[in-house]
Amino acid sequence: MKYFLTSFLVLTLSMGYSQSIQSPSGKISVNFKLTSNGQASYSVNYNSKPVILESFLGVKLKNKPALDANFGIDSVKNSSFNESWKPVLGEQSIIVNHYNELIISLTQKETHVKMNIIFRVFDEGIAFRYDFPKQKDLNYFIISDEVSQFNLTGDHKVFWIPGDFDSNEYPYNETKFSGIDNDKVDLNNGIAAKSIAEKYNVQSPLMMKTATGLYLNVFEAAVVNYPVMHLKADVNDFKLTSVLVPNAIGDKAYLQTPCVSPWRTIMVSDDARDIVGSKMILNLNEPCKIDDTSYIKPMKYVGIWWEMHVGKSTWDYAGSQNAQNNLNQDLVASGKHGATTENTKRYIDFASKNGFDGVLVEGWNVGWEDWFGNWKEEVFDFTTPYPDFDIAAISAYAKSKNVKMIMHSETSGSVGNFERHLDRDFENMVKYNYPAVKTGYVGKIIPRGEFHDGQTMVNHFNYVARRAADYKLMVNSHESSRPTGYGRTYPNYIAAEAARGTEFNAWSVGNPPMHETILPFTRLLGGPMDYTPGIFEIKMSHYNPDKTEQVHTTLAKQLALYVTMYSPLQMAADLPENYEKYPDAFQFIKDVAVDWQDSKYLEAEPGDYLTVVRKAKNSEKWFLGAITDENARKSEIKLDFLTKEKKYKAIIYEDAKDADWKNNPIAYKISTLEVTSKSKIKLNLAPGGGTAISFEPIN
Amino acid sequence: MKYFLTSFLVLTLSMGYSQSIQSPSGKISVNFKLTSNGQASYSVNYNSKPVILESFLGVKLKNKPALDANFGIDSVKNSSFNESWKPVLGEQSIIVNHYNELIISLTQKETHVKMNIIFRVFDEGIAFRYDFPKQKDLNYFIISDEVSQFNLTGDHKVFWIPGDFDSNEYPYNETKFSGIDNDKVDLNNGIAAKSIAEKYNVQSPLMMKTATGLYLNVFEAAVVNYPVMHLKADVNDFKLTSVLVPNAIGDKAYLQTPCVSPWRTIMVSDDARDIVGSKMILNLNEPCKIDDTSYIKPMKYVGIWWEMHVGKSTWDYAGSQNAQNNLNQDLVASGKHGATTENTKRYIDFASKNGFDGVLVEGWNVGWEDWFGNWKEEVFDFTTPYPDFDIAAISAYAKSKNVKMIMHSETSGSVGNFERHLDRDFENMVKYNYPAVKTGYVGKIIPRGEFHDGQTMVNHFNYVARRAADYKLMVNSHESSRPTGYGRTYPNYIAAEAARGTEFNAWSVGNPPMHETILPFTRLLGGPMDYTPGIFEIKMSHYNPDKTEQVHTTLAKQLALYVTMYSPLQMAADLPENYEKYPDAFQFIKDVAVDWQDSKYLEAEPGDYLTVVRKAKNSEKWFLGAITDENARKSEIKLDFLTKEKKYKAIIYEDAKDADWKNNPIAYKISTLEVTSKSKIKLNLAPGGGTAISFEPIN
Repeated sequence: MKYFLTSFLVLTLSMGYSQSIQSPSGKISVNFKLTSNGQASYSVNYNSKPVILESFLGVKLKNKPALDANFGIDSVKNSSFNESWKPVLGEQSIIVNHYNELIISLTQKETHVKMNIIFRVFDEGIAFRYDFPKQKDLNYFIISDEVSQFNLTGDHKVFWIPGDFDSNEYPYNETKFSGIDNDKVDLNNGIAAKSIAEKYNVQSPLMMKTATGLYLNVFEAAVVNYPVMHLKADVNDFKLTSVLVPNAIGDKAYLQTPCVSPWRTIMVSDDARDIVGSKMILNLNEPCKIDDTSYIKPMKYVGIWWEMHVGKSTWDYAGSQNAQNNLNQDLVASGKHGATTENTKRYIDFASKNGFDGVLVEGWNVGWEDWFGNWKEEVFDFTTPYPDFDIAAISAYAKSKNVKMIMHSETSGSVGNFERHLDRDFENMVKYNYPAVKTGYVGKIIPRGEFHDGQTMVNHFNYVARRAADYKLMVNSHESSRPTGYGRTYPNYIAAEAARGTEFNAWSVGNPPMHETILPFTRLLGGPMDYTPGIFEIKMSHYNPDKTEQVHTTLAKQLALYVTMYSPLQMAADLPENYEKYPDAFQFIKDVAVDWQDSKYLEAEPGDYLTVVRKAKNSEKWFLGAITDENARKSEIKLDFLTKEKKYKAIIYEDAKDADWKNNPIAYKISTLEVTSKSKIKLNLAPGGGTAISFEPIN
Repeated sequence: MKYFLTSFLVLTLSMGYSQSIQSPSGKISVNFKLTSNGQASYSVNYNSKPVILESFLGVKLKNKPALDANFGIDSVKNSSFNESWKPVLGEQSIIVNHYNELIISLTQKETHVKMNIIFRVFDEGIAFRYDFPKQKDLNYFIISDEVSQFNLTGDHKVFWIPGDFDSNEYPYNETKFSGIDNDKVDLNNGIAAKSIAEKYNVQSPLMMKTATGLYLNVFEAAVVNYPVMHLKADVNDFKLTSVLVPNAIGDKAYLQTPCVSPWRTIMVSDDARDIVGSKMILNLNEPCKIDDTSYIKPMKYVGIWWEMHVGKSTWDYAGSQNAQNNLNQDLVASGKHGATTENTKRYIDFASKNGFDGVLVEGWNVGWEDWFGNWKEEVFDFTTPYPDFDIAAISAYAKSKNVKMIMHSETSGSVGNFERHLDRDFENMVKYNYPAVKTGYVGKIIPRGEFHDGQTMVNHFNYVARRAADYKLMVNSHESSRPTGYGRTYPNYIAAEAARGTEFNAWSVGNPPMHETILPFTRLLGGPMDYTPGIFEIKMSHYNPDKTEQVHTTLAKQLALYVTMYSPLQMAADLPENYEKYPDAFQFIKDVAVDWQDSKYLEAEPGDYLTVVRKAKNSEKWFLGAITDENARKSEIKLDFLTKEKKYKAIIYEDAKDADWKNNPIAYKISTLEVTSKSKIKLNLAPGGGTAISFEPIN
C-alpha cells in the first residue's frame, strides 16, 4: 500500500473544506465535504452524474456530545490498494481487491474527540466507515444512534423487506421508493417471530434501480461487534438514514477505542452484472484468521428435513408435530418420527450411492415436543438423542459409507442456553465425527429483550464461528442476522440462511417466482446462502390432496438454482424417493460443482432474470444456471467463456414447452449438444422457469 | 407424611371461608381466609396475639387476568411432617424438619386457572408459597408482579438495607419502621454498582423487633427460577408488599406449569435465639440432589487477597491498580503484582505450616488492567495466567505441601462471557487440581439490563453450582444474590458473600461494630457467608500513615467471628506476616473447627450481641464466640453444654481491659482455665469487642 499525505490542514471553521476521490476506473467519484459548522458529508457521482446527493455523516453517543458536527480537519490521506487473495471456497479462485482510499482525520472542537472517516472507492461502488482511534478523550462509549445518510436522486424502483429486528425471512416488495410502507406488508407470511418497529424502516441490502437505468445497492460489510444496520426511508425526500438495531434497553453498540464501525456500502453501475458479481463486501472484511483451513470443504448434502416440512414425518419423537407443548403428550413414538436410526441409514445409503458428501438430520435430539413459541429458555441440551436415534451406530455407519453427518443444533432463540452448552455440543460433534453444524434461531431471543439483529446477537453468531474454528468445525447458521462477509475472516462460517428460504413454500404463501432473481442482488452479497434447492415434487398436493401450497418454480429452475444461488454447501432438499422418480433430472444435481474456479454473470436484472456460468475448481467443467421470474423468457447465450479449441458435451436441462411454475411445473426436457467456445445456445425459460446446463470437455 | 383431607368444598362466593393451622408447639397459628369476592389472605398469631394482620395474597400475570381475586376453593388439605436429615456440612450434624402443612386448592372463576397456596407452620415461623399445577388453562406464563403482603401490627424496630437490585453490600440501618427511607442512606459507602429504584423498597431478610419484645423476620426460601423478593414498605400503614426484581424489559418471572414460587417466610419468637438458630430456610429447600458428596469438604484458607485491599500489592500485573484502563499502561510488571509464583509459594508454605486446607489467589489471570466500571463484556478468559504466575508449578508445589488451591474467577458482572467460558474454567480447575472456585460479580450485569437479583441471575448462580457439581467442584460466590438455602440441594455451593464483607473496612466507611451482630439474623439464615474474618492489623494506618480506615472491631472479636459467623469455608484473611506477629492469638484460628456436630445460641439480640457455642464434628472440642456492638458488654455463661463428668481446658481469647475497637483494638489477653459442665465463665467484651474460647477435653 502506498500512502501519500495530501495535506495537513489547520482550517478555520468558516472556510469549509472538500476533497474528492475516484474509483480506479474513474467512473465513480466521492466528494467529501466539511461544512462551515464542521459537519461531515459526502456525495457520490457515477459517470459524473450524481447518484448520492450530499448526505451527512455522524454518530450519536449516550451521555456524551454527538459526533455529528463541530469537527475540524487534522489531516487527509490518500492511498491506493491493489491485491489479490484466494478464498478457501468461493465463486472464483482469485479475488482482486482494488480500491482508492481517503482517510479524513477529524477532531471535534471542545470535546477534543478524534474520529476518522475512511472512504474506499472500488470500480463497482464505494464504502465508508467511522474509525475511532485510541485517545485520551474517548475510551469506552455507547453508540445511541448512527446518522449516516444516503440521499437519493429520485423515486427509484426498490426491492425491500420491512425493517424487522428479528427476521429477514420476508418476500421482497418491488415498489417505487415512495411506496415503501410496512403497513402494506401482508404479515400472514409464515414468519415466526416478528419485530417491526417503524412504518418506513427497511432492511439492507437494499437494491434499487433509477429511472435512468442505474443499479444502486446500499448495504454494509464487516459487521463485527456492532448491530445490523437497517434503513429509515424518508419517502418524501428519497433519503435513507441508518437505523441501528437496539439492545434490550435501547442502546445500540458498546465500543472501546480503538474501534471501527462496519463499512457502509453503496454499489452503483449501469450494468446489473457488476453488482451481482461484486466481491466488494468480502474485500472489505479482514483476511482469514484461521491458520489451518484444511477441514473447510464444500459439501453437497441430503437430509431428513423436507419430509418434516411436507408433513410426512415429524421433528418430535412422539410424532405430534406439536411444537408448543401438548400437555397430554407422552413420549411414545407414533411411527411418524423422522430422525430414526433406520431412516437415517436410508439417507446415508442414498447419499453414498449418489456421491453426496453429507447427511443432515433434524429432530434427532430431545426437546422438539415443546420447543417453539413460548420464549422457553431450557429447550434443548444439544447432545441427548431421542431413544430411536442411535448416534454412535449412525456415526459408524456413515463413516463406513464415506458420508459425513451434519449436526443440527436448533436453539429456538434461547441463546444463553446454547452458549452454556456450546462446548458440549461441539465436543459431541468431534466425538461422533460430525464436521459441520447447522444452527437454528427460530423464535424470540433469550437474553430477553435482545433481537436477532442487535449487537449481542451479531457477536453471538460471530462467536459461534470462532469457537467452531477452535474445534475445526464448519457452521451453517439459520435465522441468523444476514452475513456481511465475515466468512472471509472465518471461512469455516461456510453458509447461512438469513433470508427467506425454500422451506416457506411448503407451508406458507411461499416465495414468489421473482424471489430467487433478487436474492443474488441482496442477501448473497454478504456470503453464501443455504437456500436448499432441488425440490422436484413441486406441489404439496403430492403429499396431501387438501394442500394448495407449492414451490413457485418449475423443476428445471430448481436445477438452475444450484448455479445461480452460490453456496459451497448445497442441499439436495427433496426426498430420496422423489429423486428416484426423476433420475435423469437428478443427474444434474449429482454432477454440479459447489466450489468454483471462476464465475461469469452473463445476464442480470434484479427481480426479472439471472444467467450465470461457473467453472468448477480444478476442472474444465462449466455449469450454467438461468432463471426467470413469473415471466417466460428467451435469450441466446454465447459460449465464449469455454476454453478455445476445446469441445464440450453440453447437457441442457430446461423447461418443457408447456411448462409453467403454476400449471405444469415438473415438465422438463433434457438434450445433449456438442459445443465449442464459438457456439451459442438458445435459452427458453417458462414462466417461473429456468435452465441448467453442464459442460463437460470431450477428450 | 400423613394427609387428611379436611373438606371438599363447593362454596358460594358470598359465604367466604376461613381455615386455621398451628405450629407443632401450638404457639404460632396461621389463619387463611377467602373473602366473599374470592380474595385470599392470611394472618399470623403468636401466643394467640396477632403478629401479622390480615394480608392479601396473589400474583399478577402479563397479558392474562391477575391471580389475586375471584377464587373459589376446590379443596383444603392438612398434613404434618416430621423428619431429620443430615447436612453434608453444617452448624449441626442432624437437622429436624417439623411442620404442619395446609394446602388450599383454588380455582379462579371465569379463567378456570388453578392455583394452590401452601402454608407450612414450624415452631419458629411460617412459610407460604404459590403452587401452579399443570393444567389446561395455564401452561407458560409471565409473572408481572407478586402482591404478597406482610401487614405488621405496629411501628417496629427494623434492621434494613435499601432495595437495591444490584447490591446487598450495604451496612444496616436500625430505625423504626416509619423511618425507612432510602433517600437518607449515605451512598458514599464503597459499593460499586447501585440500582435503587424506589424510596421505600428494602431487602429481605428483614429483621424486626416489636415494642412488646417479639422478634420478627421476613425472608424467603428456595429461590429457584424466580427473582429475588425485595419488600416495599408502606411506612404509614406498617405494611410490607413483595417487590420482585425485574429483568431487562420489566418482566419478573417466566414460568411454566407445574411450578412454584419460592417460600415467603415469617419467623417469630419472643426469644431472638430461636430465629438466629433456625434451620427453617434450609428445611424449605429440596433435599440434596448430588449423589457423590465426598468431594465437599470444609476448608480453612489463606490467600493473596487482603494485601491488595490494603494496598500492599495489586491485582493487575503492571501494578497500576488502575481497574479502568490506563491508556498509557504497558504490561510490564512493576514488582507490585500480588499473584506471583513466588508469593503464592510463600502462602502455600504458610498454609502448610499452620494446618490450613487451602490458598486463594486473586489477580492471577489476565484482565485486571481493565476489568471494572465500563460495562465491558470480554474482560477475563478465566484461564490465561499472567506471565509471573506459573500455574502448573504452583499446582505441583501445593500438592507437594498437601495444600489445595482455590481458583478465583472474577466475572466483573459480564455473565454471558463467563457462561461462554465456564466449561473451560472448570476444566482448567480439574487440570490443575483446584477443588473450589471463588466467583465474583463486581459491576453491572451483562446481559445488559439484567440485575444481580433478577431471575436471570438467580438462574445463573444456581446453574454455576449445578455445573460445578458435574465437575465435582465447590463454589463460593461473591456479589451474588443472597442464598436462600439452595446449599441444601447443592451442598457444593459451599458459601457465598452476598452481604457487606470485611473488605469494606479496608477502603470505605466500613462496617460499623453492630454489623456482625445483625448478619446472623439476616444474611446467614440463607446459607454460610464467606465473611473473611481474622484481621489482626486493625488499622490501615499500619500500611500507610495517611489512611484512616480501619476494621471496626477489636482483634479478639475477629477471633470470635470464626464461631459467630458460621461457614464451612473460613478465611484467615490477614497477611502471614501479621499472624506471625501475634502467634498466640493466631493459635485460635489454627484450632477452630469449621464443620460442626452441634451449635447452641446462648445469648442473642440483633444489633447488640451474640454468643454461640459449637461442638466440632466428630470431636469433643467446643468453641465459643461472643461479640458485641459498639457497647462494652459483660455476661456470665454457663458451660452446661459440655459433656458431664468431663474436664476441659478452656483457652480464653478476650479483649484486654483497656481494649476498644477504635482507640485500642489490638489489645487482647489469653488465659487458660480448667472447666467442667458445671463451670461458669465471665465474659468481658470491650466496645466493638468479642471473646473466643476453645474447649479441649483433658484426658
